Amino acid sequence: MKILVTGFMPFGGETVNPAYEAVRRLPAQIAGADIATVEIPVVYKKGPAAVEAAIDAEKPDMVLCVGQAGGRAEITPEFVGINYANFRIPDNEGFQPLSTKLEEDGPDAYFATLPVQAMVDACKEKGVPANVSYSAGTYCCNEVLYELLYALDHRHPGVRGGFVHVPYLDSQAANLKAGTPSMSLARITEGLTAMVAAMVEHEGEDIVSASAGCEH
Amino acid sequence: MKILVTGFMPFGGETVNPAYEAVRRLPAQIAGADIATVEIPVVYKKGPAAVEAAIDAEKPDMVLCVGQAGGRAEITPEFVGINYANFRIPDNEGFQPLSTKLEEDGPDAYFATLPVQAMVDACKEKGVPANVSYSAGTYCCNEVLYELLYALDHRHPGVRGGFVHVPYLDSQAANLKAGTPSMSLARITEGLTAMVAAMVEHEGEDIVSASAGCEH
Amino acid sequence: MKILVTGFMPFGGETVNPAYEAVRRLPAQIAGADIATVEIPVVYKKGPAAVEAAIDAEKPDMVLCVGQAGGRAEITPEFVGINYANFRIPDNEGFQPLSTKLEEDGPDAYFATLPVQAMVDACKEKGVPANVSYSAGTYCCNEVLYELLYALDHRHPGVRGGFVHVPYLDSQAANLKAGTPSMSLARITEGLTAMVAAMVEHEGEDIVSASAGCEH
Amino acid sequence: MKILVTGFMPFGGETVNPAYEAVRRLPAQIAGADIATVEIPVVYKKGPAAVEAAIDAEKPDMVLCVGQAGGRAEITPEFVGINYANFRIPDNEGFQPLSTKLEEDGPDAYFATLPVQAMVDACKEKGVPANVSYSAGTYCCNEVLYELLYALDHRHPGVRGGFVHVPYLDSQAANLKAGTPSMSLARITEGLTAMVAAMVEHEGEDIVSASAGCEH
Repeated sequence: MKILVTGFMPFGGETVNPAYEAVRRLPAQIAGADIATVEIPVVYKKGPAAVEAAIDAEKPDMVLCVGQAGGRAEITPEFVGINYANFRIPDNEGFQPLSTKLEEDGPDAYFATLPVQAMVDACKEKGVPANVSYSAGTYCCNEVLYELLYALDHRHPGVRGGFVHVPYLDSQAANLKAGTPSMSLARITEGLTAMVAAMVEHEGEDIVSASAGCEH
Repeated sequence: MKILVTGFMPFGGETVNPAYEAVRRLPAQIAGADIATVEIPVVYKKGPAAVEAAIDAEKPDMVLCVGQAGGRAEITPEFVGINYANFRIPDNEGFQPLSTKLEEDGPDAYFATLPVQAMVDACKEKGVPANVSYSAGTYCCNEVLYELLYALDHRHPGVRGGFVHVPYLDSQAANLKAGTPSMSLARITEGLTAMVAAMVEHEGEDIVSASAGCEH
Repeated sequence: MKILVTGFMPFGGETVNPAYEAVRRLPAQIAGADIATVEIPVVYKKGPAAVEAAIDAEKPDMVLCVGQAGGRAEITPEFVGINYANFRIPDNEGFQPLSTKLEEDGPDAYFATLPVQAMVDACKEKGVPANVSYSAGTYCCNEVLYELLYALDHRHPGVRGGFVHVPYLDSQAANLKAGTPSMSLARITEGLTAMVAAMVEHEGEDIVSASAGCEH
Repeated sequence: MKILVTGFMPFGGETVNPAYEAVRRLPAQIAGADIATVEIPVVYKKGPAAVEAAIDAEKPDMVLCVGQAGGRAEITPEFVGINYANFRIPDNEGFQPLSTKLEEDGPDAYFATLPVQAMVDACKEKGVPANVSYSAGTYCCNEVLYELLYALDHRHPGVRGGFVHVPYLDSQAANLKAGTPSMSLARITEGLTAMVAAMVEHEGEDIVSASAGCEH
């Protein structure tokens, strides 16, 4: 099995992005799966294009894109990507799409096709804070998530994919507004490794588990 | 024009729900539209059923459902409802669906069909804090939003709908954890009134405005 | 009995200060006590001087100074003022004292001499969120609190005093960062009125209640 | 030079306290100073007594007490300890003093006698988030800080002292409420080490720097 893991470049004036910093520290194999990593640009349309180019090159079984969600305290797998861009700041090439559909013929949203709850549980078992997120925002991270799922749906049948947001690094937060949560690079890397292992272990499980049922 | 506005009953041990308290104080007419209001139960499947029964009875042109999002500081129209239930607490009849699809044949999500940004702008112009929200959670509020949009899509063509979350009342927060944000009933009612007026004024506008375009 | 209540002018680029807006709306009498109000400048040394000038003019039995603590969700009586100024922004005349003692011969801190817990309880009973605060910061609010208590200690024996922070108004927060808590002017005024009534009812009580004792 | 560093035992149902976990990992020497460490109980009066017993035994030049402030995102040296106890939960032996003075003949507060701003700066330079705090609360941490400064003032002339709060460990936060900030044990230990080095380097500096002056 092969898993492609992508990480964003720095953006918004930062000189580092914890996403790719952690991604490039992942081991070459996790739970028996080969890990391929790639850095992608924080640029409208070019980010998703870089992901798909890597899919074409690596032929992975699963794809996990990783980005920074400054201000969050936990590692958060995203449940859903939406067909919408509304950038609060320009991307790294100065584009700022506002209130725009990502794909004219796409559905309003796609659920990730990874076992997000199992990923969260595996991360917490390692003592690294994690939680499922139900909004990836309206910037490049959501764009890459939605476009990944659109591409998998249309052009890569059988490949599963999703997105994980990671907090600021401690070293970033040390220079930011008082009270900004953060995480060490070591723990982010450890958490992502645990999440990828859970992807392997729970391979093929749907994000919505019909078996969970209804308690009464 | 007629607008149906629904508000949830109290739940989770509270004796009051700011949603219906504000909804029942709305004027009979807003911006020339007739306002019909109804209180709905915080019960799986019964909440959405009550909304649709009111649609059948009132034949509205637009539907706005209102619920409480304890902990938020602002009035927040929801952008999207997702096909997923994962109740963190049981509903008012003791049901607690976990990791369940709401509609087996439904899409992963529906965007609301109300002009959410215009609603936010109108509310802020009155000096009442507001913001677009991109997650309605996984409890009864999201259920009612998704099922409303599913029902409109399948059975009520031309009717538009959406959901707005309101903060705790000051009187609720006074007895809760230190630092819990809240709003007065008067301001919530004023904000909802402004939002309904914006719904009338911007009637027929899509939630995603193609004209917004891409700045460079 | 006479109570002097002071409120700060706007500062930091704001055009309104909820403190004086609420103070000037207080009734002329509360719980049988006459209320005198005055607006004071957000200026190093001139703020405290204006408070003491009003004390000399009004001869009050108690003094309550009121200021804005943007970002807090509740009305918060301050427990303690510290002998320290470290302004994060310049005052309204451009002074910015850094890491400076307010009074060379003063103690490190003074406790307020008002019944802060009873004030909080009275406010909550009206359904207005409130809590005791243990830090008034290091800007003009703490300066006025410390200098008030220093002045009462040295020059106005028998007069009691303290400070209350109030949140942003809703109309301020509507134009600020998403998630900023706020309160309506009506509720702030109602809460302050309840707090002043508690000051009258609990007149002469120490801020530290020896009777509270030690549970085991 | 010798520095005594104390850390609290677990409390409030936790099985670990990041304070002592980090303290016991400090190197034996920091910036040329010998480091003595001791674990102290989260018990009214017994905590301060254990600190003073260690002072008597170790004869340190400076004392730094360390405790956990669950919910904070940064390592925070405390500026001031207040003569007040109001425990929100019972201590580890079931005592819960409420609205009580710690020392009948003590001043309302003592400033720490450590260079807190230099400690914060040194910590941030290592990429570990830090900030000065102006309230140590009203539980055992403030009690130990106030009683330490009272003891130094009365019985150990020339010895300097203060208190630092540290965040939850990642492994604690992983099992707590969503959004709870935390820090890794490695970073907490690194941050404390940098702070102790700054204590040595800035030995003898007052917490209020008269030289900072007033910008205009």
